[in-house]
This record gives sequence, structure tokens and C-alpha cells, in this order.
Amino acid sequence: MFRFELIKESGKSSARRGRLTTPHGTVETPCFMPVGTQATVKAMTPEMLKDAGAEMILANTYHLYLRPGHELIREAGGLHAFMNWDGPILTDSGGFQVFSLGELRKVTDEGALFQSHIDGSKHMLTPEYVMEIQRALGADIVMAFDECVPYDATREETMAAMRHTNDWAARCKKAAMGKEQALFGIVQGGMYSDLRIESAKTIAEMDFSGNAVGGLSVGEPKPMMYDLLDEIVPHLQREKPRYLMGVGSADNLLESIARGADMFDCVLPTRMARNGTALVKTGRMNLLNARYERDFSPIEEDCGCYCCAHYSKAYLRHLVKAREILSHILITCHNLHHTLELMRQARAALDEGSFESFAGRRLAVYGAEEEDQGR
Amino acid sequence: MFRFELIKESGKSSARRGRLTTPHGTVETPCFMPVGTQATVKAMTPEMLKDAGAEMILANTYHLYLRPGHELIREAGGLHAFMNWDGPILTDSGGFQVFSLGELRKVTDEGALFQSHIDGSKHMLTPEYVMEIQRALGADIVMAFDECVPYDATREETMAAMRHTNDWAARCKKAAMGKEQALFGIVQGGMYSDLRIESAKTIAEMDFSGNAVGGLSVGEPKPMMYDLLDEIVPHLQREKPRYLMGVGSADNLLESIARGADMFDCVLPTRMARNGTALVKTGRMNLLNARYERDFSPIEEDCGCYCCAHYSKAYLRHLVKAREILSHILITCHNLHHTLELMRQARAALDEGSFESFAGRRLAVYGAEEEDQGR
Repeated sequence: MFRFELIKESGKSSARRGRLTTPHGTVETPCFMPVGTQATVKAMTPEMLKDAGAEMILANTYHLYLRPGHELIREAGGLHAFMNWDGPILTDSGGFQVFSLGELRKVTDEGALFQSHIDGSKHMLTPEYVMEIQRALGADIVMAFDECVPYDATREETMAAMRHTNDWAARCKKAAMGKEQALFGIVQGGMYSDLRIESAKTIAEMDFSGNAVGGLSVGEPKPMMYDLLDEIVPHLQREKPRYLMGVGSADNLLESIARGADMFDCVLPTRMARNGTALVKTGRMNLLNARYERDFSPIEEDCGCYCCAHYSKAYLRHLVKAREILSHILITCHNLHHTLELMRQARAALDEGSFESFAGRRLAVYGAEEEDQGR
Repeated sequence: MFRFELIKESGKSSARRGRLTTPHGTVETPCFMPVGTQATVKAMTPEMLKDAGAEMILANTYHLYLRPGHELIREAGGLHAFMNWDGPILTDSGGFQVFSLGELRKVTDEGALFQSHIDGSKHMLTPEYVMEIQRALGADIVMAFDECVPYDATREETMAAMRHTNDWAARCKKAAMGKEQALFGIVQGGMYSDLRIESAKTIAEMDFSGNAVGGLSVGEPKPMMYDLLDEIVPHLQREKPRYLMGVGSADNLLESIARGADMFDCVLPTRMARNGTALVKTGRMNLLNARYERDFSPIEEDCGCYCCAHYSKAYLRHLVKAREILSHILITCHNLHHTLELMRQARAALDEGSFESFAGRRLAVYGAEEEDQGR
């Protein structure tokens, strides 16, 4: 059911153009997946998502396991039926959320014990259980259970987490054998390039349907992330998709595509929108800024999104100030379209053999008007 | 530009079928207007509103005067352009909001002095100023400035407010002379039938484009509201539209149509939606109820709305529990469709001469499963 076709390689960089085939349709790569944490991409209907250009979305195993529960979603006919999304879905493994949201977590060789961020109840996730949960959710692509460490973790902590990640990857592979869902392994290893290389080699050897890189974009300087990617990518099979987890700003996307990454997800476009910040070619636009009070032009004149076709900055500013739900809807439409359109243009440039000059032009203007720093 | 055509009268009750013609299109009556307080019907795009069956919407003068300000909306090209709604709009006069939201209000013959609910700033609204504000907003139908009193107001308080309302109506008429917007007068008089009749006669004599009834559905028992309507309506010209303000529950709508009302508005369908309550033929459905946890059927099997076509109660309950914006979007779609479809069916029944039996059938089942009382 699952297939990755490498359509074209740039040659001038490690960028490549590909296509994923899944039980719920094809996805052109490089691709960006909007994040639907709780079985909904916040403030969007599925029709709006498609209109913005989304082909595949991501949902979070940790959140859905805790609420409404994977058995309920199984009874509903799986995540696709439950949330009315008929395109491809990828579910993460919950590793990152156990690390970032779980209270009092305790990690052993067996798995991760943690308390729910919702009600404090105790739960144990093991590689086998994570595979069972993801099977119930029914995504097209599922992820192996991994252990993340913070940016400032020591070498010992990082190595221990990487060992868990590698062991758990093997157990996930075994637990998933013969199943229809495509399983991706995750490379960890923190900020240590030798550990990253060790992890990449180990994960690649296990021959997953795809290889992911986790634990980047967690606070490290951007050049460090790019350098680590340069170290990791050569060890991940050329013919398999490479998924860089949690990355979604325009500069990170372009730089990572150039380094050979094919798939991305990030809450940045949707979260920024709910803070009243629009993504624009020059960076970020804080719509609460007084300069937009009587600005009756759209966020970007040349943008083809629903928001820019019909609404002015002055109206959006009013909605943000008045805390109206429509502000979340409209700015999310714009930010997702912005990010997905960047990917579409990147793919077109790859098709034409001009990705590097396209990326160079976009990066040259990016950040020029960055009003609202931070990830 | 403005015209009301009386298409058919029931004969068996005071119900009638009509059509409003406005600069932004026609509206079939009896009609229900979704409320777009701050230049947005909460959680809806204009496309969703039209899909739910909305023809005309209401916006609030008080809110828009305070934020973003009527001059800004005038500069934007008026409310239609500002909020991307190309259909008819009615703006209220702010009288009800000064009464219900304004702090430290002081009413004199001249007008109403009040403090903003947003920032405590002081403002004076007079009939002349309210007309100027509504002119800047540019709605198709505008309302005269009125003074509301609570359900338990004394006869003296009610009479004083009615006198203000009548005097201000005359000043609004004068201030609006020769303008393109249709101006409606408002009948007040609280719960006193002789005052209601006096007000109705006074307002009717002033020969507005339409006559509204304000200050009902403010906490009085439903039979009292219906009795007052029976007293008021005969004094309002047959050939002019009658607008019952702030009414939107199914029983109130059907009973009031039977008594000769043509137009309605209410926040009930949209506000209920944001509380996780769906309107159904039998009353109200609280989607947080545990009985819906694994109910994979839609809110109503025979409903033609977007929400019922694609989403289950179990999914909606999950969204409400997880406080997801999509719950507001989907349940608002359903509740507006429910209310607007009731009006469509009422109009069809009027066309066929069967309104009273239609209303009887709907009222017979209404309230059977009312889980969540209150307006």
C-alpha cells in the first residue's frame, strides 16, 4: 500500500522531489503536514484545509490516547472517519508529548510512565502499546516510540535516550510486522553529532518504510540544526522518505529541503495564527500592530488564500482585538496557505531544476520585517 | 430602495408570508437574522452563513461604535465591505446594549450617557448621533434609538422609558430624512398592555418603513409575551414589516409568527452552540452528556446541515470537551441551519396555507427532551 517514489534529485543540493503513495491518496514531496493534535487542525474544517493546499495531516497519539481514547476512535471507524478527513494521516508516537507535557514521567527500558496533563491519571506507554494505539487510530503512516531529550541534555542523558529510542524502534518494528500501516523509525542523539550518526545508522539498518529525525528545532541555534542534518542525512537511505519532525518556519523548511528532508510538520503556522500573527514572505506580521488599524489591504496582495481574497488587515486586527473566533479561522487559513504554497513552489522549482535559486530568493527577503521573533 | 411585499396572509392566524427588498437583495419573511455583534457572526464565515440559509444578518451599533469605531468602518466602505457580507444587514440602535452592558448609565431627555464595557470611557448617545453612526455603518435597515427597561420595572419607570423611546423615534425620523436606509421604529412599554398599546399607536403613526417590538423576551413568562404581542400587533400597519427583537427559540418563533411577526433575531442559536448545546426538534441537546460518548450518529439523522452530513455526536462531544474551536464552528452551523430551516418550513407552510398545522406539529414535540432550560 505504501510507496515512496523519488521523482528527481536536484544535484546542486541534496534537495529532492518525490511522491508518497498511501491508502488514502498520494502526497507530493517535499510536503508540510498541518498539525491536528486532537483530531482537528485547530479552527479549520477539512474543506478549508484542502482549500489551503493540505494533502496529509498529522495527529497526536498522546493526546488522542488520553482523550477521547484510541478504543473509541477505533469504534468510530478510525481517525479518518472520526474527524472527516479522507486524505492521508500520519500519527506521531507520543514520545515528544510524554517528554514535553507529561508530569512526573519515569523512563525505564520497558517504556515511559507518566501522568496525564489533563487529569493527573497515571499511564504507561511501551513500544508495543504505542503500536497498538496507533493501529486503533488507523493512520496511513505511524511512528516508532522514541525518547526525546532537551537541548541542554548531557552526553550521558542523550546517549541513554538514544539507546532507548533504538531499542524501542526494534520492538515497534516487531510489533508492527505484517500490518498495513507504514512505520517510520526516528533518529535521536541530541546535539552530539557522533550520537546522531550512530542513531541514523542503527535506524537505517532496521529498514523502516521511512526515516524521521526527531529532537531538532528544540532551542538550538539554526546553524547547529543544519550542521546536524548534514551529518545525519547521508546515513538515511536515498530511496526512503526523510521526515524532519517539528519544523515549519520558511527558512527552516527551505534549508532542510536543501539538506535532503522530504516531510515536515509544525504547529507554528496554526499557533501563530491564534496569536494574531500572520506569516508573510518577509517574516511575521503582528496584526495587533497599530499601523494596521486603517490598513484596508489584505495581508499580502499577491496571496491566493481565502483570507487575502476577502479581508483586510484592518478587519483582521479588529477581530483579533475583539477576540473573535473568525480571526483564528481566517489567519489560520492564510498561514497554512502560506506554508503549503511555499512547499508547492519549492516542488515546482525542483521540477524545473531551479530549487536553489528559488530558495535563495526567498531566504534573502525572509526576516526583513520580522516583528515577532520566537518559534 | 426598500420595499415590503405582503405575499399572503394565513387567515387562520395572524401569520403572513412576505418579502423584503433591500439594496443588498431580497429577504423572504418570516425571517430569522443571525446576530453578528462585532461585524462577525461568531465562528462563521459568510459562506457558512449562506450555506446555513441566512439571507439577512444583524450587527450591533453599540459594539461597533466602541470598537473599531464607525468612522473606521465608513472608511472601509461600510459594514458590508468591512466584513465581506454582500447580503442585507440590519443594525440595531444600541439602546438595548446601553441598557444591558453600559456601566453607570444616565438617561436624560437628550439621550443616554454611559461608560464603555471595554475600557470604561464615557460616551453620550443621542437619537441624532445614533443615526449618524448607523449611516456610517451603512446597513440596509437601521433602528430608532430606544430605551429598554427590565422585566420588573415599575409603571413609572416603564412610562418614562416609553416616552423617551417615542420622542427619540421622532428625532431619529427627522435625522434620517431623505436617506437611503430603511428606518424602523421600536415599540416599548414593558409589561403594561396599555403602555404597549400607546407606544404602538405612536410609533405606527410616525410611519416608519417598519415597526419593531423591543423589550420582550426579557424574563417574562412566555404566555405574557404572547398576550402582549396580541395586544400590540393590531396597532401596527398590516402593510409594514413587523420585527420582534431578541426572539429565537423555536416555540417563540412559531407562536410569534402566528401573532403576525415577520422578522426575528437572537443570539440563542450561536451562543448555545458555543456552550456545546445543539438545537433539535425536541428541544436542546447538551453534547457534553455522557450518553453521547460513543454515539456515532449525527445530531439529527434527517438534518441537512454541514455538521450532520459529516460529524457524529461522539466527535462533537470530544471537540467540546477538548475545547476545540471546531466545536464552535460545527455546532453553530447546525444551530443556525436548524433555526433557518424552521423559518423556511414555516414559509413553505404559509405558501401552502398549512402554517397552523405545521406549527402545531412542531410545538407538540418541542420541549420533550429539553435538557438544558434557560434562554
